[in-house]
Amino acid sequence: MMKRSDRLVAMTNYLIEHPMELVSLPFFSEKYGAAKSSISEDLAIVHRIFEEEGVGYLASVSGAAGGVKYIPKVSATYSEKFIDELCNQLEDPSRILPGGYLFMSDVLGNPHTVRNIGRLFAARFSDVKIDSVVTVATKGIPLAYAVASFLDVPVIIVRRDPKVTEGSTVSINYVSGSSRKIQTMVLSKRSLQEGENVCIIDDFMKAGGTINGIKNLLKEFNANVAAIGVLAEAEDEEEDRVVEDYTSLIQIKNVDANNQQIEVIKGNYFHE
Amino acid sequence: MMKRSDRLVAMTNYLIEHPMELVSLPFFSEKYGAAKSSISEDLAIVHRIFEEEGVGYLASVSGAAGGVKYIPKVSATYSEKFIDELCNQLEDPSRILPGGYLFMSDVLGNPHTVRNIGRLFAARFSDVKIDSVVTVATKGIPLAYAVASFLDVPVIIVRRDPKVTEGSTVSINYVSGSSRKIQTMVLSKRSLQEGENVCIIDDFMKAGGTINGIKNLLKEFNANVAAIGVLAEAEDEEEDRVVEDYTSLIQIKNVDANNQQIEVIKGNYFHE
Repeated sequence: MMKRSDRLVAMTNYLIEHPMELVSLPFFSEKYGAAKSSISEDLAIVHRIFEEEGVGYLASVSGAAGGVKYIPKVSATYSEKFIDELCNQLEDPSRILPGGYLFMSDVLGNPHTVRNIGRLFAARFSDVKIDSVVTVATKGIPLAYAVASFLDVPVIIVRRDPKVTEGSTVSINYVSGSSRKIQTMVLSKRSLQEGENVCIIDDFMKAGGTINGIKNLLKEFNANVAAIGVLAEAEDEEEDRVVEDYTSLIQIKNVDANNQQIEVIKGNYFHE
Repeated sequence: MMKRSDRLVAMTNYLIEHPMELVSLPFFSEKYGAAKSSISEDLAIVHRIFEEEGVGYLASVSGAAGGVKYIPKVSATYSEKFIDELCNQLEDPSRILPGGYLFMSDVLGNPHTVRNIGRLFAARFSDVKIDSVVTVATKGIPLAYAVASFLDVPVIIVRRDPKVTEGSTVSINYVSGSSRKIQTMVLSKRSLQEGENVCIIDDFMKAGGTINGIKNLLKEFNANVAAIGVLAEAEDEEEDRVVEDYTSLIQIKNVDANNQQIEVIKGNYFHE
């Protein structure tokens, strides 16, 4: 039998590694050789500290098939601080590329930053029924995995070109919102079940042509788009925008390549 | 001031979210309002339970700039069980695709599986000096992030084609090992510092042409390849193999598309 202090370390580790997963009291009781009443007291401590630390809470599910579920959350203080730092980091004029694009690969290359972005979206979408996270290759991939790991659902990757390792695929053509070019998107037939509730995640949205393309491709699978999250949205595209119901963490404004100026502000995630 | 039970939950959460990061005793002491001697006792408990649970240990760094560092590890029992399950899952004949390829997108789409694969590689490479993890788009990306998150280093993504959002790039041509076709690889100039120690991660290796291509591209940055990890290696390629020093988790043998047969066994990770 484990002591309380030992159990708390083991249970904290277990719960963090299994977000959104229903864990029964008998499971913990057996695993750590403790009475269910002791486990209940342990879980009350974990719950309280998770709330105090702003990383989420334990939801209790009652009944015979009941237990607890770790729901990841982020405190408002923490998320605002995190996004403020991200905005500052991105406002560096040396990031401005020809065409008014912004170099973000280093930011998206930091696994800790990516995990935090995933936690923010997962916290926002944790009340929505989501069966899978869909993104399009390649920059959205790490963000999609970060969100999916907190929601405990699989990731499905839409490609620009078919590949032999995908097996049979469904493809669509769509018009890119900003460049007005015809592009292709491809998704493995085996990847989605009929009628799944999906969350679309991407790194960047201008007019929204790419996300609209994903939505059209998902229609071929009768999937229901339950949520859309983009790390960064470009301003100045509001009249041309073809996607309405999305959540953005940051907004990139006034990219002025000639004068090497740029403004990055909080996205609509923080508007409510 | 927090009670011991409360501190253990908070510290466990903090350490798991900050692997390979040196945390000083005064940091914890201040954060949780406890004497350094109490914090030391807490850390001893966390260390013991992490070892018992097979998820790693806390390394003590002495001296003025000292503290503790959570080093992720995986117990042999756990890693063998995990890989056995993975092999079983992949041996399903319905995964065989034309050309003897194997459908693995669903396995690689499971964030929990991907995180475990990352933990295995990170555990094996935790004694090697690694500054960044490099992969090539697209299937290696989630694995690279999983490894990097446990090693606390950035991810750098080699692309097949230049993209405006990468800024200036360095590119090379190389000959694919199996198809003998000339292919291109591109890496953003800003992505790597001179002389960095990198770990290459990819999902699949046949003769090793792709990984050899990455190695050649990295030479342009005077980077040092400190480790190579591939999830799956194909057998039957041993005589043509152009990469020697790699670690594989699984080996795919005898893919027989005509008779719908396939064998998947443990990789060289388990050979020592």
